[in-house]
Amino acid sequence: MDSIYPLSKKLNFFVLSHPLMDTRKHVEVCFTPGEYDYYKDEYEIVVVIDVLRATSAICAAFDNGILSIIPVPTVEEAWEYKQKGFLAGAERKGQIVEGFDFGNSPFSYMREEFRGKEVVLTTTNGTKSLDVAKDAEIVVVGSFLNLDALSEWLSKQDKNVLCLCSGWQDKFNLEDTICAGAISEYLINTGNFVSEEDSSIAAKYLYLSAKDNYLGYLKSSSHRKRLKNLNLNEDIKYCLTPNQTRVIPILKNGKLVQLSED
Amino acid sequence: MDSIYPLSKKLNFFVLSHPLMDTRKHVEVCFTPGEYDYYKDEYEIVVVIDVLRATSAICAAFDNGILSIIPVPTVEEAWEYKQKGFLAGAERKGQIVEGFDFGNSPFSYMREEFRGKEVVLTTTNGTKSLDVAKDAEIVVVGSFLNLDALSEWLSKQDKNVLCLCSGWQDKFNLEDTICAGAISEYLINTGNFVSEEDSSIAAKYLYLSAKDNYLGYLKSSSHRKRLKNLNLNEDIKYCLTPNQTRVIPILKNGKLVQLSED
Repeated sequence: MDSIYPLSKKLNFFVLSHPLMDTRKHVEVCFTPGEYDYYKDEYEIVVVIDVLRATSAICAAFDNGILSIIPVPTVEEAWEYKQKGFLAGAERKGQIVEGFDFGNSPFSYMREEFRGKEVVLTTTNGTKSLDVAKDAEIVVVGSFLNLDALSEWLSKQDKNVLCLCSGWQDKFNLEDTICAGAISEYLINTGNFVSEEDSSIAAKYLYLSAKDNYLGYLKSSSHRKRLKNLNLNEDIKYCLTPNQTRVIPILKNGKLVQLSED
Repeated sequence: MDSIYPLSKKLNFFVLSHPLMDTRKHVEVCFTPGEYDYYKDEYEIVVVIDVLRATSAICAAFDNGILSIIPVPTVEEAWEYKQKGFLAGAERKGQIVEGFDFGNSPFSYMREEFRGKEVVLTTTNGTKSLDVAKDAEIVVVGSFLNLDALSEWLSKQDKNVLCLCSGWQDKFNLEDTICAGAISEYLINTGNFVSEEDSSIAAKYLYLSAKDNYLGYLKSSSHRKRLKNLNLNEDIKYCLTPNQTRVIPILKNGKLVQLSED
């Protein structure tokens, strides 16, 4: 009976190495919204990531009891909502746009006045990615803040997953890529997912070399330098601290709401 | 007199940390031709990289005595040249296009008949990058094959350098990124260059983790799998072996010729 185990291993190898027999789902990484068109067709779930700071702020907002967030791509649209009496936030180049009361700092959503409210938000990169991905079957919001909760939920869906990084002004950025690599690594380790794109393999390598010290790893990144000039060190530390919440924001009819797992 | 050294170090730190006093040039990495527009304005030199296989083939061709190469973006243009009697090559999806005698295998340029000749070439990714970059002040061709010779030359130019990776069908690829990371690392180590883009920092990390075994590192890359299906293992080994030639192909009036260092 000793020979059965090696035989089953061989069969398993045969099954997994034959594309038609491989039932594993894909988890892949797209570095910027501009490249989304080259990836989009094969994925039922898109995870939008903008670690510094839109998707971190969105997770913090739901953790603090916000009802819903309407993401809009332009400042003009956010302004129109504000004129109609909505709570509206706008960020460009890392700063709150003049005339608005808040931007994309996670801390600004921790105020009592936001509880149970609907909020409108536009940011440089994150809401742009949400707009680009909006026609996908399922769009959820990822950040370090909800890393484990989101990864666990994704692992149960039996669907192909694309992590869409928001980048910085259409360019690649490290922190989104590392967060995408963390999600990919989790899903691959379940044995039910595989990554094949070079971008995904790179994201996983970068995550593995960063995971013991995100802040140290990112200290040389252009984005962190840019934010440092804006005195946002507290925001950065907060956004790079994993698993502060179990919320999973999901896009439903143009609004972000909290996923209920019923 | 002991205090002079620390003082000079402090002054040096002050000088280098002040943007206006920092005379170092930039070496940055752009992952795909599609993103070139976000980078292009700040660099006098563009290094076009398509490791598997266009820029490796171009380096091999000059090493074997070819006179010049006319890179064209489309198969139609290559075909027109062929009708006029030119030696013309065309590759799409890793294979020689029907009706053409050669594509982008470095070995195809090692034949005696190419010596002293002018050749026309179109490839899926590499000649597209050359086309995208053609208006830069200086466009040179990089690969692992001419890594040290090219890096040494770049270090002497006192100009900003952009490594333009060709990617695979508009997506990021690992092998071009690692080659770009190798060039960046060389230039940064001279002390006269600095990288600030996150893409460049990622390329350097990926290069450092790959440099001891390129072939092993890339074995999981999608591109290598794709080429493996085409039985191109010998090409891949050749293209990943650094410093087989000192040639530096340079774009002059729409033609690639060998740089003469007079």
